[in-house]
This record gives sequence, structure tokens and C-alpha cells, in this order.
Amino acid sequence: MDYITELTEKGGKAKLAARKLATLSTAVKNQALLAMAAALADNQAVIIAANAKDIAQARENGMAKPLVDRLMLDETRIKAIADGLRQIAALPDPVGESISGWLRPNGLKVTKMRVPLGVIGIIYEARPNVTVDAAGLCLKAGNAVILRGGSEAIHSNTAIASILANAAQAAGVPAGAIQLIETTDRLAVTAMLKLNQYLDVIIPRGGAGLIKTVVENSTVPVIETGTGVCHTFVDAAADLTMAQDIAFNAKVSRPGVCNAMETLLVHEKIAPQFLPAMLERYIQAGVEIRGCTQTMTYHTAVKPATEADWAAEFLDLILAVRVVGSLDMALDHIAAYSTRHSEAIVTCDYDNANRFQQEVDAAAVYVNASTRFTDGFEFGFGAEIGISTQKLHARGPMGLPELTSIKYIVNGNGQIR
Amino acid sequence: MDYITELTEKGGKAKLAARKLATLSTAVKNQALLAMAAALADNQAVIIAANAKDIAQARENGMAKPLVDRLMLDETRIKAIADGLRQIAALPDPVGESISGWLRPNGLKVTKMRVPLGVIGIIYEARPNVTVDAAGLCLKAGNAVILRGGSEAIHSNTAIASILANAAQAAGVPAGAIQLIETTDRLAVTAMLKLNQYLDVIIPRGGAGLIKTVVENSTVPVIETGTGVCHTFVDAAADLTMAQDIAFNAKVSRPGVCNAMETLLVHEKIAPQFLPAMLERYIQAGVEIRGCTQTMTYHTAVKPATEADWAAEFLDLILAVRVVGSLDMALDHIAAYSTRHSEAIVTCDYDNANRFQQEVDAAAVYVNASTRFTDGFEFGFGAEIGISTQKLHARGPMGLPELTSIKYIVNGNGQIR
Repeated sequence: MDYITELTEKGGKAKLAARKLATLSTAVKNQALLAMAAALADNQAVIIAANAKDIAQARENGMAKPLVDRLMLDETRIKAIADGLRQIAALPDPVGESISGWLRPNGLKVTKMRVPLGVIGIIYEARPNVTVDAAGLCLKAGNAVILRGGSEAIHSNTAIASILANAAQAAGVPAGAIQLIETTDRLAVTAMLKLNQYLDVIIPRGGAGLIKTVVENSTVPVIETGTGVCHTFVDAAADLTMAQDIAFNAKVSRPGVCNAMETLLVHEKIAPQFLPAMLERYIQAGVEIRGCTQTMTYHTAVKPATEADWAAEFLDLILAVRVVGSLDMALDHIAAYSTRHSEAIVTCDYDNANRFQQEVDAAAVYVNASTRFTDGFEFGFGAEIGISTQKLHARGPMGLPELTSIKYIVNGNGQIR
Repeated sequence: MDYITELTEKGGKAKLAARKLATLSTAVKNQALLAMAAALADNQAVIIAANAKDIAQARENGMAKPLVDRLMLDETRIKAIADGLRQIAALPDPVGESISGWLRPNGLKVTKMRVPLGVIGIIYEARPNVTVDAAGLCLKAGNAVILRGGSEAIHSNTAIASILANAAQAAGVPAGAIQLIETTDRLAVTAMLKLNQYLDVIIPRGGAGLIKTVVENSTVPVIETGTGVCHTFVDAAADLTMAQDIAFNAKVSRPGVCNAMETLLVHEKIAPQFLPAMLERYIQAGVEIRGCTQTMTYHTAVKPATEADWAAEFLDLILAVRVVGSLDMALDHIAAYSTRHSEAIVTCDYDNANRFQQEVDAAAVYVNASTRFTDGFEFGFGAEIGISTQKLHARGPMGLPELTSIKYIVNGNGQIR
């Protein structure tokens, strides 16, 4: 089947399914999620066999070891992925919530009600667990989903999507609710980005390159996720022990994720007390430091930072460090280089804390905590489809309510205008 | 100045202004709105003189009379436009609202706070009143705005934007908060649609052609407004007098707007009692009827409807009429042809009313009322920047809260992960 035919057929099926999904009961959706979890366990041999083909192919193509590891599925991982579906089943159903309602002077009763978005396209890279997470979250929020994973995981994804779709359908979910694009032709992505007739939204999940391609080429509305050039500003009035723990955690605990810190800003007043020990701790942990000229005076291992370093999302054990003369300079630096993901100040000064949280424009703005907390689970949402770095529709960690829209239900008794 | 230079300069100024606008007090914003209203009145001679140039040009170019009328400004209209700014000043400020907040088990306090979107681009057609409305609404919600009106109104818009920007600035609003693109080069629109570096969102206001161009070419997130192929379904269990009044109002009261009905669906059981008088009333009012074969049996003046008529937004005294065998057939017709703007059922049957409101996917779904009520003022929002027909971010009439985003304010005391 050519990719245009596949996209059109699956788009049409998804749209039909979405009409039925919109009024599907919470009970049926939850039963389906549990059945999907059970089906993954029951079919783990099939999944592992399919995954083995992807792994063999990846090794043949010389894929880097950490990427091969992210692609790999075993019993433990499949169990964890299935447990994720059970957790989604346990979450409250966002659909049908009356968000607000009021009576107009003419007697019209207006109710703002939460409804599914409709058909969601998810475009992602190698990790096959996204196939399950995205299918589960979209289903719980009443949406049909069209999944387009990376070609590296095509055997795993095809096996998983087929198992999930069959289990869901047997539990009463309409056919077409969960579909995977099976062609690995890259042109299918380009065509999917123009599928306005069938898709209500596209959510890309992956690296900066993928997200850029989607944002620049999609005519379907996009929720941009991901890129995080996050800062921590250690103010003159900081508790230096707390500052060191927060700054260390924000960089080192998991450097490859979007909420990890990329640039540390330090007030010049406390730089002499703070930076030497801080830099030594980083360097002991294997962090490469690229600093401004002042930073370089505090440790011999500091390399000079270039303009590009201030804007870089390293996603690695590399940190840019800059000494600034004031809170205003920190705010200006952040305004210039931040991707508006997560920003933190460490301070004991009430006014500085407030100003920072008021003036910094980012999805999450922290006082005295690590930027690493920007996460759907850490925020208490019980799920996460991604972290939005745009301002439209959703910002920050996206849970189930972010996968919904609204409609106005208006009840009258003959009103005309 | 070439358009690239103009866009880049104004984009940069808007972005700087947006940082300051985000923390501007409600008092200053309201004073500025009142000062802008006063300035329009004080400078009405200047505005009318500029408008006269546009009118002369329009007549020279043979613009249709109703369009010339929409372009025309006089003392009465300027007063009404200025009053609109005073109404915006009287509305509550959406910025700074705590939407929700909670404490995490680790002691982190998370607050979801309403903040401005940032920089909004408005692309619109001939009506110069949009210049004032959009500037006022964006300012109140703390956003910088870049306006791009139609070339037909360039003299009026340039005069108005300059008066508004000066008045706002004198009242304490940062420079760059209100800017108009002054070049009439059409390439400026194309370039504006790619201005991701400066614009957070683009809202097109105008005809289907403009909206299509924006949706298909913008890499900046868009809020799609406008197109309404709205239906009214007269159920078998309808009060026929009420149904006639609602169906007449929905088509005839203002046929040129997006919430006007374009297709009337009638249950076949009541078609013999309902349609002859209804069709006669429409025809007396000058409405051209394009009907299905059954409809044609009820009045000799009915012309045959084509497939294209079911999908048409006539925006005129033309109505498509179809007799359907059941509520399900009505729901299928609406699912196939609706633009998901506003849909109505007239019925006394409780279950049919509920099913219609549950199953129809549209921004506003009515029982026993005219679709003409889909409007920010009629919904009680006190303002309207447009009516969204997409599902992302905003759906239906958009007031001030729809011109905002959120950020998470997170307060800790040393939490690390």
C-alpha cells in the first residue's frame, strides 16, 4: 500500500472512530486500558521477537549503544509499560466535565463542557514505549490516535499497535481508535503534516530536528514539545548549601532530558564563596564547564564559553556558567537565551523571588527547587504526553486535560436574536 | 523601508514591549484604554480625513457599495469604536489569575497562573474598526500586538494605529505595544506568517480565502476563526411555531455572518406540516431555497440542491434544505458537512435533545435557540476577538481569557530530584 492510500484510509477510519469515542463511557475506556495491559503481557513473546528484529537491524546499522538500549524491550520493560496503562485507567476521565456554566439574561443556559480533541497524530522517534503511552492517554481522553514512530522501531511498534488495537476493539472501543502508520517511507511524515482533513492536532515527540521539521511544515495545528535551555540563577542572597545541591541536581541527575539545567548564572557578590566548590563538585562528577571570563578565574578546568554555548541545549554533562552583576542581568540573560521551558532562582530574598517568578516567561518558574521537577508525574498529573514549550493550548507538562478541547452546550426555549 | 526590515524592527520592539506588558498593572492598562478612547474622539477629524482617502481610492477601484460602507468612518462610528475601548477597560483583567494550585507530597507548591500570550499578530481585511478592537483587547490581556490590515484601509489604519500607540504610550504603556505594518506589499503577509522569532500566535480575521492562506502557510501557531456552515435540525417532536421562528431568525436576521444558518434539516414526519409555510415565509423574505427532491415537493419555487450546496457557506439570502428520515440521518449530515461552528436542534424530546448535544461536534450546540447567539457579547464575555473554529487553545467565541496563556509558579525550600 502506498503511503497516501494508507494515510487517507487510516485518517478516514480515525475520524469515524473519533465520533464514537467522544461518547464512549468511562467504564468501557477503562476496561479497554486494562485489557490492553493484559494483552501486552500475554503477547510478550511476540513483542520481544519483533523487537529482536529491530535490535538486530540497529546493530547492523551501527546504532550507538545508548540508543540501542532505549530501543530494547524485555519482560521487565514490557511489564512497566503495561503498568503505565493500568495507571491511566485509574486516572479520572476528563471528558464530560462541566468547566463552567451560567444563565444569560435572555434565559439561555450556557455550559462549557470538556470534550475530546478528536483525532491526534503523534510523530515520535525510536522508543517503542511511546506507542503504548500515547495510545493509552489518547484513548482515555476519548481521542482516536494515529501513531508514526521511527523506522528503527517499526517491527516492535507494528506488533505492539496491533496487540493494543485488537485488545481495545474486543473491549468495545471502535475500530480505528488506535492505528499505526506502517510504511517507513519518510514522505509519509510530510504527508501526515498536511492531513488537516482528518487530524485535529499533531504532537511531535523527539529531538530538536524532528520538532523543527514538524513546526515548519505542518498545516495541522501542532503542540510543540521539548527543547529546554533551562537556567538556574544563584542570587546574592542564596543559601549556598541549598544552591549547590539544587544546581548540582539540575545538571547531573539526568543530563539528557529537557528539564535539565544547561546554564548556571551566579551573582557576582557570592561568586567567590560559591563557585570554587561548586565547579570542583561538577568537575569531579565529570561535567565539562564552559564559563565566562569571570567564571574562568574560579577554576583552572573551566573552558571559555562561546556565544553558541549560551543558546545550547547540551543534553549532556556540559554546563555553561556565567557570573552576572545583578538580578536584572540574570533576567536579561534568561530573556535572551531561554527556550521558556523551566527556570529557577535560588534566593532567600522575598522581593527577588517574586520578581523572578513574575518576570521570567517560561512554562515553569521555580524558587529554591530544581528545574528537574517539570514533569507530569512530579506535578501530580499521573500521566504525561509531553512538555509543551509553546504558549497556545497547553504549556508545561501535558496530562489528560491537555488532550481535550471544549464545546459550549446552549439550552434555550425559543430564543431568537 | 522594505517589508523585511519593517517586520524585523517591529517584531523586536513588540517582543521587548511584551516583557514589560506582562507585569503592567491593571490600573495603567485601563487608564491607557480610556486615553486611547479619548484620543480617537479628539482626533476624529484626522481619522475622517485619512478615511476619505481610502474611500476615494475604493470608489476609483470600483469597490462594491456594501464594502465601501464597511470601510467608511464617520463621527457616529468613531464614537462607537471608542466606546468599545471603554467597555474593554471595564472588563476584569485576566492576567495574574490563579487558575489552580496544590501542594505536592515533597512540599513543592505549584500554582497555575494566567499570563499574557506575548506578541499577537492580527491579519485582517478592510474594516478599520478591527484595528481598534484588536489593539484594545490585546492590551487589556497584556499582549503586544502587530496589526496587518487590508491595503484598502491603509490610510485609516495608519492614522488610527498612530493615535492609539501615542495615547497608550503617554499613559504608561511601553513603546512597541501597538504597531501596524504600514507597507501594503502582499509579501509582508507571507513573511509575517514565518515570524516565529517574534510572534507567539497569529489570528486571521476575514473571509475564507484569507483564513486558508494563513492556515496553510503559517509556521507561527494560528487560531483559525470564521467559517460557519451551520445547521438547524427541526425534529419530529418540535414545537413548529418555535421551530419556524428559530429557523427564520437563524437565516434571515443577518445572513452575512458566520453564525447564520446555511442548511435547514427537517424530519420527514413533520415536513408536510412544517415546510410549506416555512418555505413560503423564506421566499417572501427574498431567500433563495435549494432543496433535496422531497423539499421540492413542498414549494414550486425550490431549486434543486447540488452536492456543493450542502458544503456551502452562502453568507447570503440562500438556504439549503433537506428532509431527513431520522435524528441519526441529521447527525450524519451534520458530521459530513458542518464546519463545527454552531449547530441547533429544535425539539421537545428530552432524549433527542441530549443526544444531539452529546454527539454533535461543534463549538456551540443549541437546543431550541437560534445559532445566531454564538458571539462573545451574547455569551456574556463583554468582548470578542473572533470565533475559533479549531479545537486547540480556544473554541467558539474568544474573549480576554482566550488571549492568555498560563505558567506554573513553583515554590520550594531546597527540593531536588
